[in-house]
Amino acid sequence: MTAGTVVVRDVTAADFPQWAPLWAGYNTFYERVLPDAVTQATWSRFFDPAEPVHALVAEQDGRLLGLVHYLFHRATAMIEMNCYLADLFTNDAARGKGVGKRLIEAVYDKARLAGCSRVYWQTHETNAVAQVLYNKVAERSGFIVYRRQLQS
Amino acid sequence: MTAGTVVVRDVTAADFPQWAPLWAGYNTFYERVLPDAVTQATWSRFFDPAEPVHALVAEQDGRLLGLVHYLFHRATAMIEMNCYLADLFTNDAARGKGVGKRLIEAVYDKARLAGCSRVYWQTHETNAVAQVLYNKVAERSGFIVYRRQLQS
Amino acid sequence: MTAGTVVVRDVTAADFPQWAPLWAGYNTFYERVLPDAVTQATWSRFFDPAEPVHALVAEQDGRLLGLVHYLFHRATAMIEMNCYLADLFTNDAARGKGVGKRLIEAVYDKARLAGCSRVYWQTHETNAVAQVLYNKVAERSGFIVYRRQLQS
Amino acid sequence: MTAGTVVVRDVTAADFPQWAPLWAGYNTFYERVLPDAVTQATWSRFFDPAEPVHALVAEQDGRLLGLVHYLFHRATAMIEMNCYLADLFTNDAARGKGVGKRLIEAVYDKARLAGCSRVYWQTHETNAVAQVLYNKVAERSGFIVYRRQLQS
Repeated sequence: MTAGTVVVRDVTAADFPQWAPLWAGYNTFYERVLPDAVTQATWSRFFDPAEPVHALVAEQDGRLLGLVHYLFHRATAMIEMNCYLADLFTNDAARGKGVGKRLIEAVYDKARLAGCSRVYWQTHETNAVAQVLYNKVAERSGFIVYRRQLQS
Repeated sequence: MTAGTVVVRDVTAADFPQWAPLWAGYNTFYERVLPDAVTQATWSRFFDPAEPVHALVAEQDGRLLGLVHYLFHRATAMIEMNCYLADLFTNDAARGKGVGKRLIEAVYDKARLAGCSRVYWQTHETNAVAQVLYNKVAERSGFIVYRRQLQS
Repeated sequence: MTAGTVVVRDVTAADFPQWAPLWAGYNTFYERVLPDAVTQATWSRFFDPAEPVHALVAEQDGRLLGLVHYLFHRATAMIEMNCYLADLFTNDAARGKGVGKRLIEAVYDKARLAGCSRVYWQTHETNAVAQVLYNKVAERSGFIVYRRQLQS
Repeated sequence: MTAGTVVVRDVTAADFPQWAPLWAGYNTFYERVLPDAVTQATWSRFFDPAEPVHALVAEQDGRLLGLVHYLFHRATAMIEMNCYLADLFTNDAARGKGVGKRLIEAVYDKARLAGCSRVYWQTHETNAVAQVLYNKVAERSGFIVYRRQLQS
């Protein structure tokens, strides 16, 4: 492939050394530290055909610039699966190259191939930088998220 | 059971005649009309052990007062499944009886039994009536939802 | 006036002993304590013809149930003054009597008399209880407030 | 002054031919057309010592790049006046020069000089581009605006 071209592709097992720092960067952005066991489980699921959890990466000249994770799940108001874009992150080397937009659009393609009619995701209401992009490629739905942490 | 007691329980096949109007009422609230095929598919999934989609109903003296639908799906930041409370609706007969709260708490119980550590749902930012209740039983996360409808 | 009737009227100097606890209750709700000097200045301004700051109270059988403060200020996109409803509070004795709604509507009347075409106010995005009322009597504009505290 | 320097200064009567298109651009952004009488009234008030309405402009090499309007008004929870930043707009020539930030900070200076302890403004919740800047120079308060248009 031409030098300098940014390619968005499925993650492979060989990507772990470069995927892990991107995933750590993403979690740091959200001010959380995930146990290694969670990272290992999620990574394994990307390659488990029984799991509906997937990852794409953006690569340029052998370096990973960003990741996106998506998963399919049931919904009650449609017959087909819903597609949830769970995580999106790009590193400093990706800046200004439209990598975030391409990763989102690659999920659109995957969702279409899977027969989905919708892709959705969440972002914090105060994350204006991300919303500048999201407003261009999707619709701000007006829905907000409530959560309840359960004690076991 | 004592007359007048409100019971929250799993839906059964015999509930369809009373569940359907509640489901229609819920969809009317969101100003949408679902094709019958969607309703049939969703109803079937409640009784399909291969599907992670479930329904609970609130019943009083043989009459259904409300419904809640929930489903489990993968997440990338936890090992266990996430629990999505997809739909919640109560009819006029339920008013003032705490039925909405009980339906939500029943989902918490189901999620705990399933080993989940979190239940979440969405509501429109302008739906203040619902949020009065949600603020009491959950945390407003600050996250908002973006969506993209896909053309096939 | 008939016993039990709720009357909304301009504040008078004699109202201070009952207005002060309502004002304190309002400030407690917002988890702030105002210096006495601020309360004194604001109270004085209600009776100062040079000041565009006004107060109305709701009274029933000689007891004050609620207050509303409003003020007029310039705007750049209209010739007439804008009317800002600054504070609204009702106590427990007011519950279920529609006092909040009547106080808001009384400000609408005052604003109309003053030649204004608009009344506006702010509420915290998480205050769902208040928004249930506000959604009935006004429009949620979609605008949010940014603030900067200045160091002197 | 050095060629190329961007200066933020009080508006003057001679600025009208360049201020008017900026003001029109701002109103177009908000998809509204103001009657000329409103524009004339607002323009006049900038130069009327009896009016608390003010304008600053950003100028580079004799060309205006942006405007900000601000006004002082009473508040009930502070003794000093509150400062409302009413309008902010920059044109294409201002892009990437930090003009918006400088206009906001110039209002901070004016407000401090006037003895104010706070500057505030509104922006639409969906205006992510603006919020990227606002998050850097102010605090997103969590307050939202309700409005009621009055029939005369």
